[in-house]
Amino acid sequence: MSGKEAYKKLEEISKKTAYFSAALSLVFWDQRTYMPPEGYKYRGELISTIRGYIHGVWTSDEVGNLIKQAEDEELDDVERMNLYWWRRSYEKNTKIPTELLMEMSRLSTETVEVWKKARREKNFEIVKPYLKKIVELLRKRAHALGYESEPYDALLDDYEPGLTARFVESIFEPLEKEIKRLLEKVRGIEFGEEILHRHYPKQKQIEFNHYLLKEIGYDFNRGRLDETVHPFATRILPRDVRITTRYYEDFLSSGLFGTLHEMGHALYNMNLPEEYFGLPVGNPSSLSLHESQSRFWENVVGRSLAFWKVYMDDAKRCFDSLKDVSVEQFYRAINAMKPSTIRVEADELTYNLHIILRFRLERALINGQMEVDEVRDAWNETFRELFGFYPPDDSEGILQDIHWYSGSMGYFPTYALGNLISAQIYFRMKEEMGNIQDLILEKRFGDILGWLREKIHRHGSLYMPMDLVKMATGKELGYQDFVRYIEEKISTLV
Amino acid sequence: MSGKEAYKKLEEISKKTAYFSAALSLVFWDQRTYMPPEGYKYRGELISTIRGYIHGVWTSDEVGNLIKQAEDEELDDVERMNLYWWRRSYEKNTKIPTELLMEMSRLSTETVEVWKKARREKNFEIVKPYLKKIVELLRKRAHALGYESEPYDALLDDYEPGLTARFVESIFEPLEKEIKRLLEKVRGIEFGEEILHRHYPKQKQIEFNHYLLKEIGYDFNRGRLDETVHPFATRILPRDVRITTRYYEDFLSSGLFGTLHEMGHALYNMNLPEEYFGLPVGNPSSLSLHESQSRFWENVVGRSLAFWKVYMDDAKRCFDSLKDVSVEQFYRAINAMKPSTIRVEADELTYNLHIILRFRLERALINGQMEVDEVRDAWNETFRELFGFYPPDDSEGILQDIHWYSGSMGYFPTYALGNLISAQIYFRMKEEMGNIQDLILEKRFGDILGWLREKIHRHGSLYMPMDLVKMATGKELGYQDFVRYIEEKISTLV
Repeated sequence: MSGKEAYKKLEEISKKTAYFSAALSLVFWDQRTYMPPEGYKYRGELISTIRGYIHGVWTSDEVGNLIKQAEDEELDDVERMNLYWWRRSYEKNTKIPTELLMEMSRLSTETVEVWKKARREKNFEIVKPYLKKIVELLRKRAHALGYESEPYDALLDDYEPGLTARFVESIFEPLEKEIKRLLEKVRGIEFGEEILHRHYPKQKQIEFNHYLLKEIGYDFNRGRLDETVHPFATRILPRDVRITTRYYEDFLSSGLFGTLHEMGHALYNMNLPEEYFGLPVGNPSSLSLHESQSRFWENVVGRSLAFWKVYMDDAKRCFDSLKDVSVEQFYRAINAMKPSTIRVEADELTYNLHIILRFRLERALINGQMEVDEVRDAWNETFRELFGFYPPDDSEGILQDIHWYSGSMGYFPTYALGNLISAQIYFRMKEEMGNIQDLILEKRFGDILGWLREKIHRHGSLYMPMDLVKMATGKELGYQDFVRYIEEKISTLV
Repeated sequence: MSGKEAYKKLEEISKKTAYFSAALSLVFWDQRTYMPPEGYKYRGELISTIRGYIHGVWTSDEVGNLIKQAEDEELDDVERMNLYWWRRSYEKNTKIPTELLMEMSRLSTETVEVWKKARREKNFEIVKPYLKKIVELLRKRAHALGYESEPYDALLDDYEPGLTARFVESIFEPLEKEIKRLLEKVRGIEFGEEILHRHYPKQKQIEFNHYLLKEIGYDFNRGRLDETVHPFATRILPRDVRITTRYYEDFLSSGLFGTLHEMGHALYNMNLPEEYFGLPVGNPSSLSLHESQSRFWENVVGRSLAFWKVYMDDAKRCFDSLKDVSVEQFYRAINAMKPSTIRVEADELTYNLHIILRFRLERALINGQMEVDEVRDAWNETFRELFGFYPPDDSEGILQDIHWYSGSMGYFPTYALGNLISAQIYFRMKEEMGNIQDLILEKRFGDILGWLREKIHRHGSLYMPMDLVKMATGKELGYQDFVRYIEEKISTLV
């Protein structure tokens, strides 16, 4: 077989397994939306059977040999990048012993259940022995994968190709100082966020979200919006990208901004290069790039004054609870900035502090500078250092997120990087298209989306994530634009 | 490898591919319920990729050899029957050339689209050339599969293992005479079915259907009821069996009896032997057995006077349109018996005539005694002979059903056999448990379901379908009990 033929064969295998992955995506979507309760019973087996098949294909000697053969060939840019991603995943998958994967899969399923109980009872001790085992397995994973400077890098790279702890640290350290400085500036400001806790009937929220999505340009011919416990966006196939949200009748923000957030993910997924569907370059670039899209629509657009100048009247028509609320009052309420315990409810400013906390602890755990026995106290102390007070209990502290207990460490930093990228996008877009607030006022969402499509979406995974950030925003990833963006916002609130 | 090991390996393969089939079932369910419109675009590829994988496994030399090896082994009853079904499907699958399968798959997809147009324009000529090709391919299929007496038998056997045209004919001939005789008896009776065409708000219908399903014992922890264009029941996994129905606000029966019908299918699927999930014996026995379950709940229970003596008050509370309607009036209306053009809207008595018509024509087409050029006229003439008048146009004639145009001939007879089996079940149940009407009056649906589970459901595919009919009902499949059942009903209506 020639190198070219080997490459073509890999493309074929890639496209084929993409359809199996698509079926799995639907299985997950269904599981979280419409599956009857007892449907769980055989789902685990179904998922591991199909996953096992895909895994088997991509760790086979056949694929290993095809990759080797194709690498001897002269390929064009797209082909070369596909091959790069295949090689990368082949290496990763074959480096990790199957027993380690199986053990983690079994352990994390069990641990998540124990974590739920621990969180309910606000008692970290219940799940501690399980977390110990998870950290042990993750350390083994890191060593199996290999790294240059520190074990934690191996896990970061799982989620964000090429990312290192040292790089993250170089951004998080000054960022932390800046956030603390800005927190001083907003201390004592009255935001009036109580209005968001009035009564907002679910049915009305559903209507309003559908309306906004249509206004912005989410295409319901290619998507849906459903209700779920934990909101998510999923691309089942290129023309089938779905989002979910959750509704609290006593808190408008959750359903509203949750929907805009997932819409941002969905718009990225909908605008990936369809001609490369089933090939690595047809995938989104990375988690942080993905998060930059959701945060851009949720915060930069959705929490802007311009956006509500356009939609406040519609909101008032929809919700009786907003009848006596002015645009300015609403704008202040949705931009309230205050230290709080729960990451997913945090505002734009303090959100990154939550990430910095998790980054520090998981890095220390994986690198072996901290043991699980110490981590609860470390959480509380670090939290106090960052936020100025202790969390009231474990459920609002170390037990609040599912990530660690489901076997994920190295994931959290991508959330913060996404925030930073969204700010860089904002300023670059402004340079190229003029005042974004004006675009929003004129409902030129198509232009905004067009920019994102052109600069980011259409490139799929053709470039390494941080290269794409530089190409799209004109500069290396840093914390400065984010700080500038927040300062700009604070100046409208004091 | 020993025969025992070969058998065990086949079990493993069978269970594994069952999960891929489960994923496909979910894909189909989704496609007909919640998929966004453009989601279609890649679904065909997804389905044919996963199907192709399953087909590849079950036509592989490996499986062929395993079956041969296992057949040399002494096996218990369950194992022997599993092996029988594997052998049967292996033979069928390997006898048909892949090109023929591909060609049919391609052609039928195209033909269904043309058929929709033809039906809209009420013009058979538009789709005739396509149907010609389909019949040609079906004749090839029959010859590839082989048969003892006539080609059509090969297709019947696809849907109902072991069924022959001669056997069907031996039942349909006297059945036709009996139906014509009974039609004379009901001629001129006023049924007052207009009340079913009053206004029935969709939301109310949905509520009422959910209520009835719960009353009868359909377990919503293991199932759902959704809306669709063409109602169906599907088992995704043993604890996840879903049904769909459609609602017309100006015709109550469609949504109501459609739901009870699909519930009958679902109750069968829910009570299959779970310990055999993934193995052939864990599957339902045959299409006609399946239809007997749906028809039993839809007609024998759902159209009984006793059932509405129990639920009429609830129905009146739910639907304003029934406020002035008595149980007896409602019972007459839902049991109206009159010749009509559309099969799916036909009553219990005339339904089988529609099947007899299709059976005659498709048998002649496949056996080569009729050509597609003649079939439209033959349809209209045979219809007149059976029903006493001509269909007004092709859309109410030869274009009404999707089956032929999607490549299915040999399927229709199973509908009628299902009706006949349901009547045999009725009388056998009566012998063993006493008056069924009394059981219904006492809402002892659990006892009725228990009987069906014990006699039919729990056996899965452990027996050949017609053997199971005999075991469950105490006699060979015939037309007599059905006629007796209808006569009993007519005596309550004159």
